[in-house]
Amino acid sequence: MSSPVDALQRLRQMHEDAVLAALRSAGALSRAQLTQHTGLSRTTLFAIISDLIERGAVVETEAVPTGPRGRGRPASLVALNPAAGLLLGLDMGRRRVRMAIANMAHQVVATETEDVPAGAGVEELTEAAVRLVRRVAEEREIRLGALKSVGVGLVGVVGEPDLPAETVSARYAPMTRRIAEEFGVGVMVDNNARLAALAEATWGAARLVRDMVYVRWSVGVGGGFLCGGRLLRGAHGAAGELGHVSLDPRGPLCHCGGRGCLEGRVGGQALLEACAARGVALAGVDALVAAAQDRVAEVCEVVAAAATDLGRVLAGTVTQLDPAQVVIGGELAALGSLVLGPIDAEISRQALPRSPRRIKVVPADLGANASAMGAIALLLHEEPPVPLHLQPAAF
Amino acid sequence: MSSPVDALQRLRQMHEDAVLAALRSAGALSRAQLTQHTGLSRTTLFAIISDLIERGAVVETEAVPTGPRGRGRPASLVALNPAAGLLLGLDMGRRRVRMAIANMAHQVVATETEDVPAGAGVEELTEAAVRLVRRVAEEREIRLGALKSVGVGLVGVVGEPDLPAETVSARYAPMTRRIAEEFGVGVMVDNNARLAALAEATWGAARLVRDMVYVRWSVGVGGGFLCGGRLLRGAHGAAGELGHVSLDPRGPLCHCGGRGCLEGRVGGQALLEACAARGVALAGVDALVAAAQDRVAEVCEVVAAAATDLGRVLAGTVTQLDPAQVVIGGELAALGSLVLGPIDAEISRQALPRSPRRIKVVPADLGANASAMGAIALLLHEEPPVPLHLQPAAF
Repeated sequence: MSSPVDALQRLRQMHEDAVLAALRSAGALSRAQLTQHTGLSRTTLFAIISDLIERGAVVETEAVPTGPRGRGRPASLVALNPAAGLLLGLDMGRRRVRMAIANMAHQVVATETEDVPAGAGVEELTEAAVRLVRRVAEEREIRLGALKSVGVGLVGVVGEPDLPAETVSARYAPMTRRIAEEFGVGVMVDNNARLAALAEATWGAARLVRDMVYVRWSVGVGGGFLCGGRLLRGAHGAAGELGHVSLDPRGPLCHCGGRGCLEGRVGGQALLEACAARGVALAGVDALVAAAQDRVAEVCEVVAAAATDLGRVLAGTVTQLDPAQVVIGGELAALGSLVLGPIDAEISRQALPRSPRRIKVVPADLGANASAMGAIALLLHEEPPVPLHLQPAAF
Repeated sequence: MSSPVDALQRLRQMHEDAVLAALRSAGALSRAQLTQHTGLSRTTLFAIISDLIERGAVVETEAVPTGPRGRGRPASLVALNPAAGLLLGLDMGRRRVRMAIANMAHQVVATETEDVPAGAGVEELTEAAVRLVRRVAEEREIRLGALKSVGVGLVGVVGEPDLPAETVSARYAPMTRRIAEEFGVGVMVDNNARLAALAEATWGAARLVRDMVYVRWSVGVGGGFLCGGRLLRGAHGAAGELGHVSLDPRGPLCHCGGRGCLEGRVGGQALLEACAARGVALAGVDALVAAAQDRVAEVCEVVAAAATDLGRVLAGTVTQLDPAQVVIGGELAALGSLVLGPIDAEISRQALPRSPRRIKVVPADLGANASAMGAIALLLHEEPPVPLHLQPAAF
């Protein structure tokens, strides 16, 4: 049997861990909020916070009124000490690497983007990311030695680490190994659309709900589902794959092997082709969004029809998952009511009416850095369900 | 500050609670399994178990080899004392009340069924259930005074308890109140298709997986999703509503307000009508299943076409939720490969191929009492996300 002193120390440690986990996950919290989050008594909590402040692990900050309705005068907040370390989030896209660095108090200290050539391989992408991070750190005098861990958002299915080498996830193993070695810290990975959903749930449009369907409408169509406050990952890391739900089982063959997939109908490439067929040649998704904002009639019609198709699929998702909110992200979300209107109409028309509360269809809050910020949220969250790929001794 | 003695007692209590919760949720466990489940050291765990055995809360039992591959000689198991109390599960169907009673060691001690007239109201259903339980208890000499709580499965959306009175869930409030008063214990409720899913996950076809899509194919079409080991409930208690996913946005109007809903195409009533249109008049779903088992050609064709439609919807669900397993329950599941074949084919053809592991489509294990047993599983599970509706002082 362990001694009473050991037992007390462990109890104390468990309480301290609970406080730190709540702050990691939620950012700055008042003492009252911390009491709720941890279930600790006021007396115990106050003693722990005093000790943590004395040891420099947490700091007391001025309260900033947040949320929809601030009431009364703001209480002072407790947060992890920003100086306690940095977290790096990387979003490895098809043509672009994005990075974000935040401190332990949830403050973003740098974001940056670098284009990579179309068709760049994993190695090229990895080196571009490392160069980008090193350059930004030097320019902005960010001490990379303070990095505590790195989160990485990846395109496609991010499988379990124990999947055999021939699966899609294995092609990323050299990347995570290289990044872990470069920065001497642990690396966590997830699909980048799911990470964007996590970012919206942590800091963005869905921060007040626990059940949310997120879709990223861009060149590809991806998604992420928050259910009961947790991001769904699935048995093989593929949960959220909205783009490959079939709209028509007799439709054209998709690269995934299915037929009539949503992405083949409403993804950026399909929209550009539909515009071209109507005589409007556009260079890419950014140009398409600009043309729709300029109210080019053919482009608006193509986009509105696609939004209806997307809404049809989302109506099925809403019926099955029963979210409080649907969040539309990606470049197409910038078109506002042109896309939100038809999506909302399809969901209202088709999805099971289930309560007097309407399901809100809203645009994403976080813009292009959402996945990189989601990679940081992945590191901050209390119970990270995606395993650490590599955990060097230096961590 | 609390005294060191208080703190130690609380630590001890937390450890004990963890052991009891693991046993409640998983049934009988070996000491090695309990070490894994609770994270306690062997020394601490063994001391706690000895104490619990001495106090009569848990018992030591002979190990029964379970699971796909038993290895080595079976270790002795620890379980909650069966004499520690009873749990009652009720499944309130449209035409039938089912009940199951289990002890704390997960052993089912009684199941029974009673038909109720079609169109019976909530009050009639409630009284039938109370009569049934009283009668079974008397006949089999079950002491209802030992009841610790009651789980109830309900048809339709089981909303949050704080929803306004005009919502569908409110019509069940008199039922839960009456049952709580009758037996003097707390009552928990959930949708009965979701409870069948929970039962399959706890004791049945899905007990070895953490991500599972369950569909109950009967007069209605319902479902339940297990994601990362948790049953999804949704923001308004409606998660799992497979029956109202639309197959065709221009299809016939459904009672839910949508168009072309799956249930309207493949639910029992629709199948009976399709058979009648082909000249085969059948009295109900049981007769339909019997005719298909007798290989009546028209009936088999109708059922196989419906299985393909169901498979189309499930392919979308699988693409989005990425389960390890799809479990088909309800009366139609008795038709084996006639229904499993087309469902499997649609999922294989359409759902995103995501790993070398094929998604298994399997029939449910638990039969007609699945929802009543799921109501017991709801009570046993460690972290019940559905609130206690009523908690009388007697509890």
